[in-house]
Amino acid sequence: MINYPNKKAQFTKTKRNHSNRGMSFENIINESNEYYLAHDIAVIHKKPIPIQIVKVDYPSRSGAVIKEAYYKVPSTTDYNGIYKGKYIDFEAKETANKTSFPLSNIHLHQIKHLESVNNHGGISFLLIYFKSIDQIYLLESKYIVNFYNRSKEGRKSIRISEIEEVGYLIKEGFSPRLDYIQVVDKIINTGGEL
Amino acid sequence: MINYPNKKAQFTKTKRNHSNRGMSFENIINESNEYYLAHDIAVIHKKPIPIQIVKVDYPSRSGAVIKEAYYKVPSTTDYNGIYKGKYIDFEAKETANKTSFPLSNIHLHQIKHLESVNNHGGISFLLIYFKSIDQIYLLESKYIVNFYNRSKEGRKSIRISEIEEVGYLIKEGFSPRLDYIQVVDKIINTGGEL
Repeated sequence: MINYPNKKAQFTKTKRNHSNRGMSFENIINESNEYYLAHDIAVIHKKPIPIQIVKVDYPSRSGAVIKEAYYKVPSTTDYNGIYKGKYIDFEAKETANKTSFPLSNIHLHQIKHLESVNNHGGISFLLIYFKSIDQIYLLESKYIVNFYNRSKEGRKSIRISEIEEVGYLIKEGFSPRLDYIQVVDKIINTGGEL
Repeated sequence: MINYPNKKAQFTKTKRNHSNRGMSFENIINESNEYYLAHDIAVIHKKPIPIQIVKVDYPSRSGAVIKEAYYKVPSTTDYNGIYKGKYIDFEAKETANKTSFPLSNIHLHQIKHLESVNNHGGISFLLIYFKSIDQIYLLESKYIVNFYNRSKEGRKSIRISEIEEVGYLIKEGFSPRLDYIQVVDKIINTGGEL
């Protein structure tokens, strides 16, 4: 179970966001979730990063210090919660790629998790941030599954043009910054048909 | 944000379960969740323990080692997921207390979170394990809120007899060990009325 750090964890520590947003993708999502929570619109939280703790010191009675721990591969996705009684579950990914989203960016068990949530009546999707064009798309899990199945015998990525076709471009706003719930609302009302 | 370790984290490292179950409460729940997942009944996972990472070493190209980190106070609950299209959210607590469940065992913001989930149409509750009598109860969040409100001016705990009255005793089984979804089913079908 002990494993390499995931790229995102490294990213948040070392890289900066080069877009004009000036804020990391994760922070934009978290800020939006805080907005939804504060306005009692939705209850959606980011899960903590999964860690395997090996050694803990108790230097004083009041505190514990973790002295050895390792990143674990996450078994599910980063975000989940509830909106209008519906279970919401999604993963957020960013890519510097200019023309497509490489499927290697997402673990197979995460795809399976998203599919499973969908089968149980939840709303599951991927938020994809294309840094090169500074645009964020919501792509429902049913399409991710299709593209994944295609990748077994062919193309290992999803073209931006394909995402434009079946995904939803999320407009940037002031408050909340990334109003993805607006898109979720559309999915609930239309059953996801474009 | 840096904080004392929560009692549960210490518990899993240092204490043993003295009951005849021979397995920690957390493991019993996790095992049941794995059963639900394997049989495609429900998708419910335990969230990772929230950690504040301060220092990470990269001793080799292949791995990262966290060398300094601290436990954070969890902002939500331990478990959430989906069952029959419903959002499920709960916290698990155990007590050695023989006659009541002390409300100090659960953070105020966790009670608020459970209440908020309930208001948004989800099913939220507490699983309470009384080690002294080796029994596990499911208590819906609406009752927890009532008992919490009472505690502001009076009793700081919930009597076992009160839990027996409004909660559900969960029978122990072979597979899954702790079939709490059976109770959730009852709540869905009856709207939670006893």
